[in-house]
Amino acid sequence: MSIAGAHIRFTLVKTDGETKARAGLINTEHGQVQTPIFMPVGTQGTVKTLAPYELLNAGVEIILGNTYHLYLRPGDERIARFEGLHGFMNWDRPILTDSGGYQVFSLNALRTIDEHGIIFQSHLDGSRHRFTPKSVIDIQRNLGSDIVMVLDECTPYPCDREYAARSNERTLRWAEESKLYWQKSVSIHNQMQGLFGIIQGSVYEDLRKVSVHSLIDISFSGYAIGGLAVGEPVDERNRITEFCTNILPTEKPRYLMGVGTPTDILESINRGVDMFDCVIPTRNARNGTVYTSEGKLVIKAGRYEDDRDPIDPACACYACQNFSRAYIRHLFNANEILGLRLATLHNVHFYMNLVKEARKRILDGTFLKWSEDLIGRWKE
Amino acid sequence: MSIAGAHIRFTLVKTDGETKARAGLINTEHGQVQTPIFMPVGTQGTVKTLAPYELLNAGVEIILGNTYHLYLRPGDERIARFEGLHGFMNWDRPILTDSGGYQVFSLNALRTIDEHGIIFQSHLDGSRHRFTPKSVIDIQRNLGSDIVMVLDECTPYPCDREYAARSNERTLRWAEESKLYWQKSVSIHNQMQGLFGIIQGSVYEDLRKVSVHSLIDISFSGYAIGGLAVGEPVDERNRITEFCTNILPTEKPRYLMGVGTPTDILESINRGVDMFDCVIPTRNARNGTVYTSEGKLVIKAGRYEDDRDPIDPACACYACQNFSRAYIRHLFNANEILGLRLATLHNVHFYMNLVKEARKRILDGTFLKWSEDLIGRWKE
Repeated sequence: MSIAGAHIRFTLVKTDGETKARAGLINTEHGQVQTPIFMPVGTQGTVKTLAPYELLNAGVEIILGNTYHLYLRPGDERIARFEGLHGFMNWDRPILTDSGGYQVFSLNALRTIDEHGIIFQSHLDGSRHRFTPKSVIDIQRNLGSDIVMVLDECTPYPCDREYAARSNERTLRWAEESKLYWQKSVSIHNQMQGLFGIIQGSVYEDLRKVSVHSLIDISFSGYAIGGLAVGEPVDERNRITEFCTNILPTEKPRYLMGVGTPTDILESINRGVDMFDCVIPTRNARNGTVYTSEGKLVIKAGRYEDDRDPIDPACACYACQNFSRAYIRHLFNANEILGLRLATLHNVHFYMNLVKEARKRILDGTFLKWSEDLIGRWKE
Repeated sequence: MSIAGAHIRFTLVKTDGETKARAGLINTEHGQVQTPIFMPVGTQGTVKTLAPYELLNAGVEIILGNTYHLYLRPGDERIARFEGLHGFMNWDRPILTDSGGYQVFSLNALRTIDEHGIIFQSHLDGSRHRFTPKSVIDIQRNLGSDIVMVLDECTPYPCDREYAARSNERTLRWAEESKLYWQKSVSIHNQMQGLFGIIQGSVYEDLRKVSVHSLIDISFSGYAIGGLAVGEPVDERNRITEFCTNILPTEKPRYLMGVGTPTDILESINRGVDMFDCVIPTRNARNGTVYTSEGKLVIKAGRYEDDRDPIDPACACYACQNFSRAYIRHLFNANEILGLRLATLHNVHFYMNLVKEARKRILDGTFLKWSEDLIGRWKE
């Protein structure tokens, strides 16, 4: 009932003729996801500032939940009593949860990693906890996510070759342990769940190659490219992304973790990536940076104090259909929550439109020119 | 074109047989208001955390804007360029604005009052400003509110009789000056606006009597009872409220400023008040206190961590139809903005339902028993 690969079905609909861009479908028990797709981040059981119906109205098809945060608060066992994260937060579309490993590394100065897992202190109360390949699967079974991620070590950038190699080997042993445990465990919410492996190996192509081939041997429902979007130059990221997609199987979805800006996303779709998550649209919105068809703008700036235009005159979102830049600027200056809401709603809408338009362009064969035009315009 | 009294039409629909409660209608150019009515406070051009469509869905018919805040930021002249506050915040139903006097007193340690007006320092940047009876009318002309309030001095509680008497005389001179200026000035947004007088006199009935009769002689579109909800005992407030409504004309709306809790509102409707405003439902919501048909509850409390019920099982609002107390508690504990939104939405919905049900009960003759039952239940 819970063999990885049997539950999340990916269908490759079309591969672009001029680039490696792909249009596909991911079928889950909570509905279909059209790829390429962007997954807004719902760290603590909510995409910050937004209600579920607003996500649906913005075209969101799948969201990401953070295992680390949900495990600590309100606790995965509590969430399990509410029919999982879907029931707890009242979101009935697909959910992907990360393994929690990345947050342990980014939020905890005091943590130790060994062969068995990661010991860390809660950033909330200092209490000690341990994540293992098995425990994060148990947690994600409790959460009831449609796509479960294996525990890995996300190496920093830069990372010396020796550490990257040793870490990669351990991450691969964890991947194998995860798959074995996954095959023995079952869904506790009587639902389909898929397990994704995570490719590591830093910026070293030979290590990435070992990682990809080992994960393919183990076999997962999809493959994530990890260890990028950690501060490396864009060229390095693009090089490693393309190296991985070149040797990944075509019949499984590819997920580039933590990416990125609108330009990053188009460049990565170009290189054959299907799935993305990033806090940029939501976090930047709360800082007053919004994305438009003509590039990003800082809505708090004084130049908008009398601006009657919406954030983006080309945008159909609720914020752009109803409010001026001047009003939204005022809300930010006056520390009004509605400002955070409207900017977030707009940015999520912008990101979803971007990937939906990308898919349309892949299907009609105009992706390359369209994406190059956009990237060029945003550079100006 | 701008004679007070000609523009805001009040119709008394029914007076209760057992109490002094009234059902009425206020007609404005931005639509009709059914009284008794509660006006959510939109201090800085937004009812905190909520979008205009959410106010409409909650049954809000009129909101209050704060002249002091809007004058300082973003500035009433800027708002005028956006077709007034209605256009700036995209709210096309009625708006009442206060005179700004109350905020000057509550937010400014450094202010001086004399015969001509109030000099104060901005709480934002320390800059010096002056409000006069005329200037606050000019500001409210810029804002384009449907109901404009005259400048008054809201005396504190307790207030010695001598100061209350002197202040009352000045407030009445200001009221006369306001009315004369009002008759000479015109709407700059080509709209109907009404001017309300404000009764002062602290807790002294003879002073209140002077105030009421003087304001009636000047003649306003409606009469506000000011100087209450400033810390006085509830019995004192009820006594003064009833003293005023007993001698106010029946054909004009009565507005009790800054009141109050659900019980306060029912007690004041009982005494013949038609209009209310208060930050309690919105501010308390953001502090995690929510109102229900069975009384208020502190949603952050640990007792709700596994509670599957909505905030109020009897409530039809979006928050109660979609989310558990446990989830909303989690949002508060995790400092998630969605928690503030859901609690605010619920409390505003609760307050609007309260006044709508009160009106229905006045019309069908069951107001007294219904309100006594509710007040009794909430005391438990």
